[in-house]
Amino acid sequence: MKILVLNGPNLNRTGRREPNIYGSQTMEEMLAYLRKCFAEDEILYFQSNCEGSIIDRLQAADDEGVDGIVLNAGAYTHTSVALHDCIRSISVPVVEVHISNIYAREDFRHHSLISAACKGVVCGFGMKSYELAVRALR
Amino acid sequence: MKILVLNGPNLNRTGRREPNIYGSQTMEEMLAYLRKCFAEDEILYFQSNCEGSIIDRLQAADDEGVDGIVLNAGAYTHTSVALHDCIRSISVPVVEVHISNIYAREDFRHHSLISAACKGVVCGFGMKSYELAVRALR
Amino acid sequence: MKILVLNGPNLNRTGRREPNIYGSQTMEEMLAYLRKCFAEDEILYFQSNCEGSIIDRLQAADDEGVDGIVLNAGAYTHTSVALHDCIRSISVPVVEVHISNIYAREDFRHHSLISAACKGVVCGFGMKSYELAVRALR
Amino acid sequence: MKILVLNGPNLNRTGRREPNIYGSQTMEEMLAYLRKCFAEDEILYFQSNCEGSIIDRLQAADDEGVDGIVLNAGAYTHTSVALHDCIRSISVPVVEVHISNIYAREDFRHHSLISAACKGVVCGFGMKSYELAVRALR
Amino acid sequence: MKILVLNGPNLNRTGRREPNIYGSQTMEEMLAYLRKCFAEDEILYFQSNCEGSIIDRLQAADDEGVDGIVLNAGAYTHTSVALHDCIRSISVPVVEVHISNIYAREDFRHHSLISAACKGVVCGFGMKSYELAVRALR
Amino acid sequence: MKILVLNGPNLNRTGRREPNIYGSQTMEEMLAYLRKCFAEDEILYFQSNCEGSIIDRLQAADDEGVDGIVLNAGAYTHTSVALHDCIRSISVPVVEVHISNIYAREDFRHHSLISAACKGVVCGFGMKSYELAVRALR
Amino acid sequence: MKILVLNGPNLNRTGRREPNIYGSQTMEEMLAYLRKCFAEDEILYFQSNCEGSIIDRLQAADDEGVDGIVLNAGAYTHTSVALHDCIRSISVPVVEVHISNIYAREDFRHHSLISAACKGVVCGFGMKSYELAVRALR
Amino acid sequence: MKILVLNGPNLNRTGRREPNIYGSQTMEEMLAYLRKCFAEDEILYFQSNCEGSIIDRLQAADDEGVDGIVLNAGAYTHTSVALHDCIRSISVPVVEVHISNIYAREDFRHHSLISAACKGVVCGFGMKSYELAVRALR
Amino acid sequence: MKILVLNGPNLNRTGRREPNIYGSQTMEEMLAYLRKCFAEDEILYFQSNCEGSIIDRLQAADDEGVDGIVLNAGAYTHTSVALHDCIRSISVPVVEVHISNIYAREDFRHHSLISAACKGVVCGFGMKSYELAVRALR
Amino acid sequence: MKILVLNGPNLNRTGRREPNIYGSQTMEEMLAYLRKCFAEDEILYFQSNCEGSIIDRLQAADDEGVDGIVLNAGAYTHTSVALHDCIRSISVPVVEVHISNIYAREDFRHHSLISAACKGVVCGFGMKSYELAVRALR
Amino acid sequence: MKILVLNGPNLNRTGRREPNIYGSQTMEEMLAYLRKCFAEDEILYFQSNCEGSIIDRLQAADDEGVDGIVLNAGAYTHTSVALHDCIRSISVPVVEVHISNIYAREDFRHHSLISAACKGVVCGFGMKSYELAVRALR
Amino acid sequence: MKILVLNGPNLNRTGRREPNIYGSQTMEEMLAYLRKCFAEDEILYFQSNCEGSIIDRLQAADDEGVDGIVLNAGAYTHTSVALHDCIRSISVPVVEVHISNIYAREDFRHHSLISAACKGVVCGFGMKSYELAVRALR
Repeated sequence: MKILVLNGPNLNRTGRREPNIYGSQTMEEMLAYLRKCFAEDEILYFQSNCEGSIIDRLQAADDEGVDGIVLNAGAYTHTSVALHDCIRSISVPVVEVHISNIYAREDFRHHSLISAACKGVVCGFGMKSYELAVRALR
Repeated sequence: MKILVLNGPNLNRTGRREPNIYGSQTMEEMLAYLRKCFAEDEILYFQSNCEGSIIDRLQAADDEGVDGIVLNAGAYTHTSVALHDCIRSISVPVVEVHISNIYAREDFRHHSLISAACKGVVCGFGMKSYELAVRALR
Repeated sequence: MKILVLNGPNLNRTGRREPNIYGSQTMEEMLAYLRKCFAEDEILYFQSNCEGSIIDRLQAADDEGVDGIVLNAGAYTHTSVALHDCIRSISVPVVEVHISNIYAREDFRHHSLISAACKGVVCGFGMKSYELAVRALR
Repeated sequence: MKILVLNGPNLNRTGRREPNIYGSQTMEEMLAYLRKCFAEDEILYFQSNCEGSIIDRLQAADDEGVDGIVLNAGAYTHTSVALHDCIRSISVPVVEVHISNIYAREDFRHHSLISAACKGVVCGFGMKSYELAVRALR
Repeated sequence: MKILVLNGPNLNRTGRREPNIYGSQTMEEMLAYLRKCFAEDEILYFQSNCEGSIIDRLQAADDEGVDGIVLNAGAYTHTSVALHDCIRSISVPVVEVHISNIYAREDFRHHSLISAACKGVVCGFGMKSYELAVRALR
Repeated sequence: MKILVLNGPNLNRTGRREPNIYGSQTMEEMLAYLRKCFAEDEILYFQSNCEGSIIDRLQAADDEGVDGIVLNAGAYTHTSVALHDCIRSISVPVVEVHISNIYAREDFRHHSLISAACKGVVCGFGMKSYELAVRALR
Repeated sequence: MKILVLNGPNLNRTGRREPNIYGSQTMEEMLAYLRKCFAEDEILYFQSNCEGSIIDRLQAADDEGVDGIVLNAGAYTHTSVALHDCIRSISVPVVEVHISNIYAREDFRHHSLISAACKGVVCGFGMKSYELAVRALR
Repeated sequence: MKILVLNGPNLNRTGRREPNIYGSQTMEEMLAYLRKCFAEDEILYFQSNCEGSIIDRLQAADDEGVDGIVLNAGAYTHTSVALHDCIRSISVPVVEVHISNIYAREDFRHHSLISAACKGVVCGFGMKSYELAVRALR
Repeated sequence: MKILVLNGPNLNRTGRREPNIYGSQTMEEMLAYLRKCFAEDEILYFQSNCEGSIIDRLQAADDEGVDGIVLNAGAYTHTSVALHDCIRSISVPVVEVHISNIYAREDFRHHSLISAACKGVVCGFGMKSYELAVRALR
Repeated sequence: MKILVLNGPNLNRTGRREPNIYGSQTMEEMLAYLRKCFAEDEILYFQSNCEGSIIDRLQAADDEGVDGIVLNAGAYTHTSVALHDCIRSISVPVVEVHISNIYAREDFRHHSLISAACKGVVCGFGMKSYELAVRALR
Repeated sequence: MKILVLNGPNLNRTGRREPNIYGSQTMEEMLAYLRKCFAEDEILYFQSNCEGSIIDRLQAADDEGVDGIVLNAGAYTHTSVALHDCIRSISVPVVEVHISNIYAREDFRHHSLISAACKGVVCGFGMKSYELAVRALR
Repeated sequence: MKILVLNGPNLNRTGRREPNIYGSQTMEEMLAYLRKCFAEDEILYFQSNCEGSIIDRLQAADDEGVDGIVLNAGAYTHTSVALHDCIRSISVPVVEVHISNIYAREDFRHHSLISAACKGVVCGFGMKSYELAVRALR
């Protein structure tokens, strides 16, 4: 299977950013672990701070035969109707993930605009959330 | 590990109830699958339609050395402050699961009162949500 | 026909409880009248103060071939998503009844969580609401 | 007894209008059935698309000795404070009826401005709602 | 001066309708008193239960040289954007009156949609509100 | 084609009423222009300040074979559930028009109760909105 | 009669303060006019920028046999529950007045916390509002 | 006097549960202290995690001649209309108590559904709240 | 111990003001009773209708070694952020009291801005609330 | 005339994306049709998934002498204050278009943040909305 | 220049009050620093816990030729419409300051009722906020 | 010191854009003035209409040793959770500035999503706001 792991704004700094919330593991370490776990699968990776670039990448994934997408949209989770529309407009299944338990944080993080367009949600298990999301897609 | 799978109201009828939403697999079949997947673990099961009995069972699990709880609180997810308090008052980690993607359903199912007290959430993968939740606990 | 009359919390005290709102007739008197009116039908009766027991009884009614249910869920009308789900999960038609006109009382009684799952609503005619509900089911 | 059946806007087209919601029976057929059921009573009928004319008719009914009114105010149910005031200003008892279960439809149909001024509500039983309302008045 | 007193829905029944709120004086008595007080002025009178007819009358007043309008829009006060627009579209000054103190009654009577379009408001002085409104116009 | 142009409350005074918002052209002039533009079509016209009469006219249009309706419901746009229901109950397509850009005006004009029942909306182009609406219907 | 005219915060600067809203007449001029109009009555006057002093003055008026109070509470109209309570705790009738039409101004001026405790409201007639309020009290 | 101390969900674990909020004293210790303080009174005790059982106990207390009830409804304080109704339906006076200051905690604990039906509230004094509540009843 | 009893607006008229709500006992009588109950303590008393003076007194109490404050802030309970800040800025413990059960009265009395800053709340026991509050402080 | 047609996120996939909502015509086909209809005009085209790029293009259009802009901002319609500001900051007139009737879809599509800054709105006529918008600009 | 520094409730205790929020510098020290920084200007100072006295002082400043006012209204920032009106009614420019970043604190501190009437806002820089505000006025 | 001045959407057009709100000075002129005022400091400048690019620049500033950031996020102030997160994830202090007094403008500009993550706010002093913000950082 060909799986795209897609990260939104500020997630490129995971490991350095508020480690009490996001842990000290970097995305590079997480990816290495993921590729070891799912050695038979192809794990693609993309990160951008720009909402438009994330939409571009989702559309491209649909065109290039990706089998599943693990999406951590970061803060755009809570503000982007455009991501919601994009996920609905493509045929690849998308799983929403979050490192922290967003429901146990500030009020403005309790509502996700994209959940309704995704297949499912995995949230709160640190970097392990990504692994569980890949399992859900398989 | 000793894992308790705890189901709330109406989940005893899964398989017969609105199969377009909840699928046609029964809880008995799901449990059999779970016990096969995690043969080295002890998988306990409890279901009740009564909010108070679910709280009793959670408290008992804390006393009898359960290592982790997979909780599908059904409709009490959206109305029970008492379950929230109970989860916070025990030391066993609890993972919230849902069969369907509650965020893609009616408005009154979008808010969970217990998420903030749980370790994490797995939602929308049908019966597979239970398996992923057990993996998250391990 | 086999009809189940199902009463929720505090309705066991009707006749003694705030008679200016609920009247002075008891449920026993109402039942006797109902059984006289519908002599050819079987009128079952159940009351509980416990939300879970009401769900248990609704599920059992579905299994034992009841033809229709007259449900006065009392205060759970306004707070129970679990009852809503239960009514939707069974195939027996349910009619919601209220003794008093709930829309002419306090604000928190104006919204019913179960109406959307019921076939219809009869409200405000005192004990006669039960009779009209049975007629609606027939 | 002298009973006035009073219909609000668009109900003159029942039978042709969205039959999946309102059924295919016309008001003429319903009235014929009602007059057969309650042969000893006088059943008056009035329909108008105009809020003011409905108020005029309610006031007139109060003056001409009508014993009870069955009111389906249609869409004015949700917007008319004037109807609320009118019902409160007359002494004839009014029963609110709806063909469909308004609580299972769009959000803007869940709130009735007139329920608090009526004696009771019968809702969701198709054309049979009118018959039950007449029974409630008797 | 030529003054139009314009009454909205249900005000034709003042004196008979909820006298604890609206008093027992009729509009005819009020008018007679008003014409005695302001003998040098011409006091026109119009009442309708129909929102559209009230708008027709306001437009006509603008065309026929009325100098001021005393408007008790009754329940349409709280629901009619069309009256708001009409008052703004004519050049005759309009004073809003209410017999009862609407701010001391039900919540849905606390907001007037027409106040912002009127010159001023007189409210709560029983039938005397009309007299004060005429004085304000002079 | 047979097109009905239907105007709601206060629109009979367009040209005289707040010309900074609604312009100085009258409806008569607009109609003359429309009939010149669409010489091969039959352009019917109706205006009323009464919500009920507008509903009557919409129902009649459905019966008399009108091909399309251009509806400027004026202030009833924001308050009339009955118009919403009426538009849904007829089979003639209805296009909602507004002379001014209602979204750039007061808050209470930002929400239209009828848009969801109409085929589409044309808003903000002055009297030209009517011409564009007819083009949309053709 | 003994009438107390009681003004709240910033009203001591009427005549100099935003004359497009409050006019250019001073309170001294208004009082002189009022005392001329009602020569047979005793017109007392008090102004304070302090909520507590206004309450002190209202309580004192109750003790010293004042027959009626004309209260322009200024901005405290919209924020003071203490004034509401004070008006309810005394037996002298209070009429609420405003110079400008508060319902045609900013949103936060549309709600009065004291109206429900007053006998009535006169609003929007400039300095003439005070005269009408005295007439209402007599 | 015969006093019933009635505890709701999770309060059986007081002393072990979040001691920074609820303290380290157990209910058994509190009861012993209470019985020593009020040696001449009979202090009954009941705890349940089930909303329905709490209602059953309140109803029974009414039948068996209890003179006053000290109720800590725990989380049901914030969600149970049924408890509100039950308290109103019995004649024994009920005092609401809370160990912690619920108004200084999470937003969802700021509103009590039962306060309006109770005689009074004592809140925030730790286990001493129970003693003060008994004193209030005497 | 040195205890300050501090009363807010309109409480100087207790005994004369709405006795059905506040009872007929005066504050002087309450104080006499309090001083008899707690003969070994020094009971100071202060009342003001002015928010600023209450803050001044709270600050002074902090400076002069008062051991506890019983505060009935009256209507300022519901509107004063300044009192909230003041209580938080001093080190003397403050207990909030109310004579009536504020949660059983008008909606605008259900929310206290100062509870979160106080140690606890005693509410609804008439003048006895003060005695219980002193006991809570000791 | 020089007209810019400017499309926001996901509109590059029109024709493939949810054809039941957006139809099966592609933007390329729409543009060809538009250029044929308005052969004498210059029709420019731009699409981006990035909010910032759309703002860049709007600013550039202002600098390069474009005479009118037809803007379908897609999902940014509902979330972008920056687009609102940009439209207000340029002097070229902008017409807002939507392919589907956004007011008949999900709640979060009912509010447009940009309408108030545009000249007018055309919505619900499929690809024909673009043609009508160009006509409105001419 | 003549500058008035005006402080609201509880700010007289700065330095002693919650130093983690407000710092340990006193207002006397801040004033000394300010007078040193702006040696050529006259820096007046006033503090009061009373809303009315702050209004009195603002009005007086307007009369005595003050050139600019630095206002820290403390908690009245969030509750006082009277201060808003006062600032608008005087001609001296007013700059709003806060020691702490009020937008990073409790929700009820996020909204300022006076900002809209002030020239600008400086917030969050500790005692340095006062210095920056004076610079802004110069 | 190394200071980054960072401007968000549409601020590149300051001087030409709505000069009644934003003034006629351009950003180039403001920068020249700033560099003259703070000759000993290094003033960097960046502007983008793209939310993602602003985040990229903030992250880069953190990496390249910038000492302080003056951020005018323009319209993204009101919609961007991603900017909030980014500011919290870097260690350089950020001061929020606005040219106009955003609290005196439209409602949707009253709430800033980034204030809570910034050190402080300077708002309403035209281009001088930037100078004050630099002073605050030093």
